[in-house]
Amino acid sequence: MTVNVLFAALPQRWDSYRAPLTEALREAGVEADLRTDFPPEEVDYIVYAPNSSVQDFTHYTRLKAVLNLWAGVESVTGNVTLKVPLARMVDHGLRQGMVEWVTGHVLRHHLGMDKHIRGLTPGDWPQDFPPLAEDRQVSVLGMGELGAACATTLARLGFAVSGWSRSPKSVEGVICLDGPDGLRQALSTAEILVLLLPDTAATQNLIDADALALMPKGAVIVNPGRGTLIDDDALLAALDSGDIAHATLDVFRVEPLPADHRFWHHPRVTVTPHIASETRPKTASRVIAENVRRGEAGEPFLHLVDRAAGY
Amino acid sequence: MTVNVLFAALPQRWDSYRAPLTEALREAGVEADLRTDFPPEEVDYIVYAPNSSVQDFTHYTRLKAVLNLWAGVESVTGNVTLKVPLARMVDHGLRQGMVEWVTGHVLRHHLGMDKHIRGLTPGDWPQDFPPLAEDRQVSVLGMGELGAACATTLARLGFAVSGWSRSPKSVEGVICLDGPDGLRQALSTAEILVLLLPDTAATQNLIDADALALMPKGAVIVNPGRGTLIDDDALLAALDSGDIAHATLDVFRVEPLPADHRFWHHPRVTVTPHIASETRPKTASRVIAENVRRGEAGEPFLHLVDRAAGY
Repeated sequence: MTVNVLFAALPQRWDSYRAPLTEALREAGVEADLRTDFPPEEVDYIVYAPNSSVQDFTHYTRLKAVLNLWAGVESVTGNVTLKVPLARMVDHGLRQGMVEWVTGHVLRHHLGMDKHIRGLTPGDWPQDFPPLAEDRQVSVLGMGELGAACATTLARLGFAVSGWSRSPKSVEGVICLDGPDGLRQALSTAEILVLLLPDTAATQNLIDADALALMPKGAVIVNPGRGTLIDDDALLAALDSGDIAHATLDVFRVEPLPADHRFWHHPRVTVTPHIASETRPKTASRVIAENVRRGEAGEPFLHLVDRAAGY
Repeated sequence: MTVNVLFAALPQRWDSYRAPLTEALREAGVEADLRTDFPPEEVDYIVYAPNSSVQDFTHYTRLKAVLNLWAGVESVTGNVTLKVPLARMVDHGLRQGMVEWVTGHVLRHHLGMDKHIRGLTPGDWPQDFPPLAEDRQVSVLGMGELGAACATTLARLGFAVSGWSRSPKSVEGVICLDGPDGLRQALSTAEILVLLLPDTAATQNLIDADALALMPKGAVIVNPGRGTLIDDDALLAALDSGDIAHATLDVFRVEPLPADHRFWHHPRVTVTPHIASETRPKTASRVIAENVRRGEAGEPFLHLVDRAAGY
């Protein structure tokens, strides 16, 4: 029997997903009708971007699951009209891209590259050697798919890595911390702090003035997670004083970051335009197709969201 | 019986090595007298920096070996007064530091970080995603201790890595090439080229106009090896035309690089002041002490130089 799959995302997404998703569903052995419009009561699955026009799920009466195209689900979890399982995107390409971006920026700060990229004074020859990675403390907040992958990669490169999560985790090569005491420990040892937490009620403004005050003087913050994790004013004050030496920020409360925002103009801030990673159509389509196959076979969905926890 | 070990290097080296080398010799079970001066005929081993005042080994009549403090030996191999075994430095800290520097700069170029570090125009939001590392070709020339360690680490991070050496090698995760045909293949596929060859008659000016012409347009060169590997004028011409998009250079024919050298002033060149890696006293002292122990026990020395090959 044909399965009706609604693709609900902005039109440019459809352009990049139509072919790979059709192919992936075929490869998964699912006989699917993939379209951008159906009468709501005929839809079995929604492939979903939270910024699509579908915001009320009430009339999707035979809907079996919503399969998110994004890793972030914070704008979906509170939707009271959504009564069926919600799956996050966990994509090889998304994870790998994030590992590359985080590893690159951690090494950049570890090695002190910026002064060389901006250019020394010709003839200057300051041979300042950084410590080895084994003598550099990195803390990663968030031990989900992305945080754990980044932490493990940094540990394999030799860094002394602590990873913090709300509940206890075990991650290869990483000192795993949890709970409020663990958070204080992760912050107080972090020469480089990487934020890969989801946006939930519990994580908003987690990096506030109190948290920043716990960090070693001269620490660096790298945020490819969510803009809401950081209290912007508190961070700017810590950068002004030099207590925090630098912040490399990929995500913001408002995106694109408005041209008059102080982050653009602060000498201790690097702004990247939400490029740390992206879901890649080819690899992401396989994840979605596998979940449709599972739904039809009565098997448990992959990457289900715990909507009470918010991720 | 006490072994006489002469420390022949600049005075500031003595300051940093005296304590760790004394300790390492003691830990190795060697009863040694470690000094910066002995009558030549009483010296058993020389711990040696090629820029020290010892250049004539003729009168060191009971010398058993010269233990180099540097990885590079090109200024020693031609010394006809040296008749005893010469060992290179192969130091955990040197290797690890090099892996970190190379991995950091390869990721920097892969991710296109420089434009973000220099700063986008406030409000600009160009979401250009780099390919994944698996779709990025990196070639490493030189599969010695340092080159092989860097190539393996880049391959583990996901890069598509080729490694070239004069004679055939096998290195984990790396497509190993050798000989003239292998060199052409390594150059013609290299989006990012890393130079970690020794300075020998065969490697001088290896990266000349012909070699540069083989590389893909827009390729990047990273040289933490030796300044003599590159024909400077040919590189500058390729940078001027944009055929080579960028060069990150840590080593030069004359160091410190003179203030009027074009490399300092070229917008497509990043100069770093020979900091890619250094020998670290603590870890290097253990290598030297182990070689003294081996010499006294009649065991083969570690990291012996093949003086005919020049490395």
